[in-house]
Amino acid sequence: MKIEEVNQTNQCGDAPLSKTLGELYLLPVPLSDVAPDSVMPASNICVASRIKWFLVENVRSARRFLKRCDPAIDIDILHFTVLDEHTDSSDVASMLEPLRQGHDMAVISEAGCPGVADPGALAVEQAHRLGARVVPLVGPSSILLALMASGFNGQSFSFLGYLPYAVAERDRTFKDMERDIRLRRRTQIFIETPYRNNKLIEELVRRLPGDLRLCVASDITGRRESISTLTLRQWKGRRYDYDKIPTIFLLYI
Amino acid sequence: MKIEEVNQTNQCGDAPLSKTLGELYLLPVPLSDVAPDSVMPASNICVASRIKWFLVENVRSARRFLKRCDPAIDIDILHFTVLDEHTDSSDVASMLEPLRQGHDMAVISEAGCPGVADPGALAVEQAHRLGARVVPLVGPSSILLALMASGFNGQSFSFLGYLPYAVAERDRTFKDMERDIRLRRRTQIFIETPYRNNKLIEELVRRLPGDLRLCVASDITGRRESISTLTLRQWKGRRYDYDKIPTIFLLYI
Repeated sequence: MKIEEVNQTNQCGDAPLSKTLGELYLLPVPLSDVAPDSVMPASNICVASRIKWFLVENVRSARRFLKRCDPAIDIDILHFTVLDEHTDSSDVASMLEPLRQGHDMAVISEAGCPGVADPGALAVEQAHRLGARVVPLVGPSSILLALMASGFNGQSFSFLGYLPYAVAERDRTFKDMERDIRLRRRTQIFIETPYRNNKLIEELVRRLPGDLRLCVASDITGRRESISTLTLRQWKGRRYDYDKIPTIFLLYI
Repeated sequence: MKIEEVNQTNQCGDAPLSKTLGELYLLPVPLSDVAPDSVMPASNICVASRIKWFLVENVRSARRFLKRCDPAIDIDILHFTVLDEHTDSSDVASMLEPLRQGHDMAVISEAGCPGVADPGALAVEQAHRLGARVVPLVGPSSILLALMASGFNGQSFSFLGYLPYAVAERDRTFKDMERDIRLRRRTQIFIETPYRNNKLIEELVRRLPGDLRLCVASDITGRRESISTLTLRQWKGRRYDYDKIPTIFLLYI
């Protein structure tokens, strides 16, 4: 029986999962410098303490996170492989070799939830190809927390990532966003390189109609957390400074 | 000084928040019948135990959740106001009266994160109008967990809610989804009334090209959690049964 079939059988609840493969855990990390247990369930900490094989966006920050989860952890016996934006997707299959050998693995990104706005998705894709169980764990996502706190439509929304820089494409994106809001009542969520946050607000105020509302959600879960929803007309002339602070932007009517 | 101005000043980190207004907490609840502390940080449980004023989608399930968070809680001294899909948006402002009087409040939905695919957003919108602080707490979101575990693009995605039933509109939605995937590389996320889950998979297999991949993420965080990503070609002829199980569907290339 092929691995894929074993896994498929389990989807129907008919048989236990193949024991020959490890499981791939998606282990969120804090967004800011807070204690892990203040932004994730205690059971995540247990997973973090138990797993020996990690795919990480940044080895140093992953080690620091694990040490904060469990100060007694022996970092030196853990295996870290870098999976970041420079990783060639053809290299990812071999990174999952421990999974094939029956070891559980975990993906840890630089901040927040693996697979959302980071390279973890490549490992998940491969794990599905193998037929391994993928286990997403609860943790802080700045996108989701910002959406909750915006007051905007959470029944229909798009996350666009970074807005394009090229003028023509950026123009089109602004037009598309407005149309998506007005016609489909769909909340638009996007991010900017943090040192350009203030400029982006100025640009939104200048280029889009004043009746649209902008939510600026900054340093989510951090000590300087600030979440404000105002019309673009109200943002105009306001005092604000989000320079270099991780921030999520949301637009709606 | 108007309340709005006090709050605005705080965005810049210049001054403490107005003490005259309460804070609005967005308090997630488990998606399935698991202990609250297995899917949320311990600090959420503290918030749940401390707050006396609640806006809830369903009083019975909110009481049960609070009792599970803290068995010692005195439910009878708590205030519950229903905020559900039948709530008239013009009634929401008066529901926040306790906030105006300086009491902290919490929004609790039937399952998952308030404000995402539920009516909590109306309360958040009003809280922003008042200039009150809105505090989103970390918890389980089936949409986000499914996206993490799909292996699909998490840098660009749309949540569409329920697909429309009317034939012409549904046709258009299928076409739009495919175009959004191929042109913008945007993951499409949607839901279905649980008793129609199996029919939806059949429909997707029949109507969309076989090279698209479908992730079916079912009973997320529950005992029967099952997350499978396969091409539509592979789904065709597979055995599956997601009847009446809460399920998230994701499409990508």
